[in-house]
Amino acid sequence: MVSRLMEEAGLEVRIDPVGNVFGRLSGRERTLPIVMCGSHIDTVPSGGMFDGSLGVIAGIEALRAIKSTGRVLQRSVEVAAFANEEGAWGGGTFGSRAFIGALTAEEVYANTTDGQTVAAKMLAVGLEPDDLHAAKAPYPLEAYLELHVEQGAVLDKENLDIGIVTGIVSTCRWMITVRGDANHAGTTPMHMRDDALVKASKFIVAASEEASRNRGDMVATIGQAFIQPNAPNVIAGEVKMVLGMRSLSEDRLEVALSRLKETATNLGGVDIDTIIIKPPVMMNDRLVDTIERVTQDLQIPAKKMHSGAGHDAMCIARIAPVGMIFVPSKNGKSHVPEEYTEWRHVTRGAEVLAHTILRIAEE
Amino acid sequence: MVSRLMEEAGLEVRIDPVGNVFGRLSGRERTLPIVMCGSHIDTVPSGGMFDGSLGVIAGIEALRAIKSTGRVLQRSVEVAAFANEEGAWGGGTFGSRAFIGALTAEEVYANTTDGQTVAAKMLAVGLEPDDLHAAKAPYPLEAYLELHVEQGAVLDKENLDIGIVTGIVSTCRWMITVRGDANHAGTTPMHMRDDALVKASKFIVAASEEASRNRGDMVATIGQAFIQPNAPNVIAGEVKMVLGMRSLSEDRLEVALSRLKETATNLGGVDIDTIIIKPPVMMNDRLVDTIERVTQDLQIPAKKMHSGAGHDAMCIARIAPVGMIFVPSKNGKSHVPEEYTEWRHVTRGAEVLAHTILRIAEE
Repeated sequence: MVSRLMEEAGLEVRIDPVGNVFGRLSGRERTLPIVMCGSHIDTVPSGGMFDGSLGVIAGIEALRAIKSTGRVLQRSVEVAAFANEEGAWGGGTFGSRAFIGALTAEEVYANTTDGQTVAAKMLAVGLEPDDLHAAKAPYPLEAYLELHVEQGAVLDKENLDIGIVTGIVSTCRWMITVRGDANHAGTTPMHMRDDALVKASKFIVAASEEASRNRGDMVATIGQAFIQPNAPNVIAGEVKMVLGMRSLSEDRLEVALSRLKETATNLGGVDIDTIIIKPPVMMNDRLVDTIERVTQDLQIPAKKMHSGAGHDAMCIARIAPVGMIFVPSKNGKSHVPEEYTEWRHVTRGAEVLAHTILRIAEE
Repeated sequence: MVSRLMEEAGLEVRIDPVGNVFGRLSGRERTLPIVMCGSHIDTVPSGGMFDGSLGVIAGIEALRAIKSTGRVLQRSVEVAAFANEEGAWGGGTFGSRAFIGALTAEEVYANTTDGQTVAAKMLAVGLEPDDLHAAKAPYPLEAYLELHVEQGAVLDKENLDIGIVTGIVSTCRWMITVRGDANHAGTTPMHMRDDALVKASKFIVAASEEASRNRGDMVATIGQAFIQPNAPNVIAGEVKMVLGMRSLSEDRLEVALSRLKETATNLGGVDIDTIIIKPPVMMNDRLVDTIERVTQDLQIPAKKMHSGAGHDAMCIARIAPVGMIFVPSKNGKSHVPEEYTEWRHVTRGAEVLAHTILRIAEE
């Protein structure tokens, strides 16, 4: 489907062993590192039609438009449709991890949670797991550009057309265990209680305030909690909950965590155990500047912002300079059927992508 | 078993149609209202051996001791072992409700949660549901006295032997529904969130502080909460939780509730719906005074306090003046196997009960 669109746009199509699809518009200087744009074409169950596919379709359209002018750019440009970014099978950013050579045979031949190996799933759709090495980028990249829906409400609420991504936040998760003393809710006076849910509540409020203190540069979320025994007439004896925090600044995260550790100490009986700490991924300064200049030249209302969610660009950043362009998500909704981006914003995003490609490919 | 103990103590035993067992020590004036003491002999699954049975056994022992002196009191005294206070079948305070004539045939013949009628369960243990009316107290009561374990930690922590109960608290329960906006935990900045769990947490802390403000005269507990969707990476869209509050003072409860309603309004999207409001039950002033004088005369460290849990006395209060005597619960534990009251406290409780009976029966 995507390969047909690429062919129709006059691009040379290549499909790699993990199912990534590439469409190339060849440039004058075949020995120069190429410019790549793209995103992924899979989505989540009950997801929308913009997350991922927008960046691929807009990339194809940009290259079609450039080719239709008859102009031949200095560098070759490729649009990539990466496979399985959402991780329905093969784990998240499957295609882009293969492309940067970070996907190992061990991983592909290991059993997944449903008891099947990724290799078996690849074979079932006509892919060849033993050719994994051939999925690794066979040429150097000058830049990777990804147009994506914001998946948040910042651009929509601030009435902006374009977000110039400065980085993808560090994502950290901790298990918070709050221990109290389960007891009779009627006969235990307030001053004799050690109520795990009251302590957990104070921690939840503290985490929220801690993130809010960082004015848009940090989020903290506790969305899941398990209370023991969870009975109306028994004071909670234990609460286990997952704290997620994200920020572009590892320093800020460290400060926030150390303050929450103080909160935990003051409350008493609160343990904070690390589940995962993913470092932030910064966009390339030159690409950020180029995208910004494009929006200025085209007089498109834009702002610099971070990405709160992960993307293929996060992987590609390990082998090439990356830049990302956001367009607004209506009401900030994504991964739901009502995910929507206005068509004028889609057009704006494609314009910014095309002009950025032109500039980088001619530099 | 209980009836044999009563017989061995020289009491006249009567078993009524719902399984309440009474042991009588006849007095000189057969036409005067009698003095009754007692409690229940059932317990909860995995409960301890003090909750309930203590008041029955101590009552039998008190009457045995009085009888053994050869003294005949002015009023007859009965010790009652009420059936099924904990509500394993037939609903809570089954026996005492039958004794005050508050148990209806409709209730006995209605299906319970396990699909069986109470009547069927009564027949299975040799009781006669159609004789329900005969369970109603056939004689007036001068007083009902109940010795019981505190089930809280107040006496234990304050190193007191006896609690003189002034009343059984009003027990209220509300369903608290907190609505927020479920959203992506990574891409939704803090200032754009409507986090149901953060709001619920603020409410939980407010409820706890509201009760604490009333210095020992009120408790508020949220021990159960259900979060939607309860996923680590999704901002909570809804939290439903049960708020329980107890106090001897309906006025204080009303003030506390109105303040929590303000909190709810300030938070936004918080509904408070009444589940149940049970009024408090006050002990009889004369009986409270008599018990207090007994503890003073016997030089037993005691204090006046309320009961945070319900008891048979709560029912009997509807037909007679009631008084309750508490003895310490080790570490405040009850309804668990480690429920324990030191034997010296058991002795003290029985002494206070016996002396109170003597005074009321001779007045």
